[in-house]
Amino acid sequence: MAGKTRVLLIGCGGIGTITALNLEASGQCHVTAVLRSNYEIVKERGFSIDSLDHGKVEGYRPSEIRTTIPDLSKETVAPFDYIIVTTKNIPDVPPHLPSLIAPALTPGHSAILLIQNGLNIHIPFATAFPSVPILSGISRMGANELAPGVILEDDPDRLSVGAFPATEGGDSPPSDAAVAAAKRFVELYAVSGKAVVEYNANVKFERWRKLCYNATWNPVCALTGLDTGRLRLVGEKADPFSPVNLLLRPAMREVLRVARADGAVLAADAEAEEKLVEGVVEAEPLEVFCQPSMLQDAKKRRVWEVENLLGDVVRVAADKGVEVPALSAIYALAKGRMWALKEDMGLINKDEEVRKRNEGIQGR
Amino acid sequence: MAGKTRVLLIGCGGIGTITALNLEASGQCHVTAVLRSNYEIVKERGFSIDSLDHGKVEGYRPSEIRTTIPDLSKETVAPFDYIIVTTKNIPDVPPHLPSLIAPALTPGHSAILLIQNGLNIHIPFATAFPSVPILSGISRMGANELAPGVILEDDPDRLSVGAFPATEGGDSPPSDAAVAAAKRFVELYAVSGKAVVEYNANVKFERWRKLCYNATWNPVCALTGLDTGRLRLVGEKADPFSPVNLLLRPAMREVLRVARADGAVLAADAEAEEKLVEGVVEAEPLEVFCQPSMLQDAKKRRVWEVENLLGDVVRVAADKGVEVPALSAIYALAKGRMWALKEDMGLINKDEEVRKRNEGIQGR
Repeated sequence: MAGKTRVLLIGCGGIGTITALNLEASGQCHVTAVLRSNYEIVKERGFSIDSLDHGKVEGYRPSEIRTTIPDLSKETVAPFDYIIVTTKNIPDVPPHLPSLIAPALTPGHSAILLIQNGLNIHIPFATAFPSVPILSGISRMGANELAPGVILEDDPDRLSVGAFPATEGGDSPPSDAAVAAAKRFVELYAVSGKAVVEYNANVKFERWRKLCYNATWNPVCALTGLDTGRLRLVGEKADPFSPVNLLLRPAMREVLRVARADGAVLAADAEAEEKLVEGVVEAEPLEVFCQPSMLQDAKKRRVWEVENLLGDVVRVAADKGVEVPALSAIYALAKGRMWALKEDMGLINKDEEVRKRNEGIQGR
Repeated sequence: MAGKTRVLLIGCGGIGTITALNLEASGQCHVTAVLRSNYEIVKERGFSIDSLDHGKVEGYRPSEIRTTIPDLSKETVAPFDYIIVTTKNIPDVPPHLPSLIAPALTPGHSAILLIQNGLNIHIPFATAFPSVPILSGISRMGANELAPGVILEDDPDRLSVGAFPATEGGDSPPSDAAVAAAKRFVELYAVSGKAVVEYNANVKFERWRKLCYNATWNPVCALTGLDTGRLRLVGEKADPFSPVNLLLRPAMREVLRVARADGAVLAADAEAEEKLVEGVVEAEPLEVFCQPSMLQDAKKRRVWEVENLLGDVVRVAADKGVEVPALSAIYALAKGRMWALKEDMGLINKDEEVRKRNEGIQGR
């Protein structure tokens, strides 16, 4: 373990586990993984992995597994070079991730890599740790935990890494340290030869590009209960009143408009824009009946990543003065669904909310 | 029974049963009601009714109850003066109602009264029976069948009756016969003294006014799973990103714009419009946690009245060149939800739909 790059991995589901496996396949990384629901079974048997990139792997255990995030002020643990977060990102539901990882962070030494979707996901971390390099990881891997400790990776590991802007300011360039940390990580991730990984300085562009799909297909599928294939089957292809033509395409065009206003020109002209939209509409063949992650969450009655995939886009649009009625509608309905879910989970009490509202009215 | 007005009632749930009760309370009507799921229990015990207008009524049976719509070519039955339809209106799901009632209709004698929501609900009937008076009934009664044969009416019976335009043309005036049939019905309905009933010539205006609520609150509640009180609690009252401010109000303003383009001016100026919208947003107190019918349908996994409450509005908007992005989004998502429901009900087969789509593509 001497000389190895020390990685703390938070979120050891499908993408996290394959990420750990690929890093340790380099022989140059020591991964400490924080496990929750799958800890006992992984401790006993290791992960059972069926991977397009790594083949069938039985009994894989990261170098160290544990149930809690280390507190470096209380444990004798060498500092971590990278803290990788691959959890779902739901800032509107506790716990607050920056607070959770703070005890494991060594400012001046550690970098944080967020392999998560969304636009401004770095801001809570940049606010909490202004001097720490915050890196962006955009994964196009398809990987799921089918049962505790059982991982299927059926879409190959393609990772794009860059550095987020240094401050909340948005368009300020990242620090040299952050760029260096990103490039070093890309080198490490490439050693195994099993994954496709690139350093990409244009984090904002990459994140907007992925939002064309994530801010549209994800919530539309989650709200309707339909996968991408089924949704495309509602109405004839040329029907102006089909969900694809009435909502999905307009919503994608809105994402492109907001991206442009935010400085990310994804399509040079109207023709390129239509081609891009068409590509995102037909991202998967009908027959695959692909279930975006938010639809999977809906079916499992788990919280959706509404704020990072959709809320940020609507807020940036408001900030830049871009009208986004389709995205606004989707966002409003998704917010409503999350309220209902949180009430079911016991996180909201309707009578308490009425009381607060009425007091607010009286207070005016 | 001699000299009594003969009424055939189709749809004997909450609103239908109270309508029958009120008509027969006049002593001047003979109601033949077609019952489905509640036939056996009503035959045995009659309806058990708790009515704000009629008090507690045990064992009420319409003058005649039956399980099928009479076929006047095969049965010796006197012709019906009025055929009243109070079923849910879902033209996208079989059976086709005009075909069902055709055998009970005596052209030149019968009038059809549709006590249903929606805008252009008369068109399938006017197309099938061009010479038959088609009447519009807009009910503001709140009545539900709590269990088979058990009716609670907790919001008083207020009925507005008029005649639909004579033809599909839209703005052509109704026939004299239709106006006379509507006025005669209003007189009959008023005899009991228990209901508030009015003749209202401005059917289009009345229908658009009700759509301000029905095309917005209904699907927004159904799609989120939240009642009107809970939905208003999502986000602060002044939060521009709350579902009410981000979606519900814009959708209501769109209904007003389409109505205006269709010749129904519901609000004279911008100030009146905002007042009307505010009134529809706050139609019920928070604490009532009112569940619009579409939300009730969603919870019971029944088909929603999407096309008549929402689809027609979006189609009229397209026809008149009015942009309705919020309503379009809601409609698209509701259509998707109905596709999912119909698949669950065995009415749609996804592989068959893929085959048809692929053949369509090859055919080009």
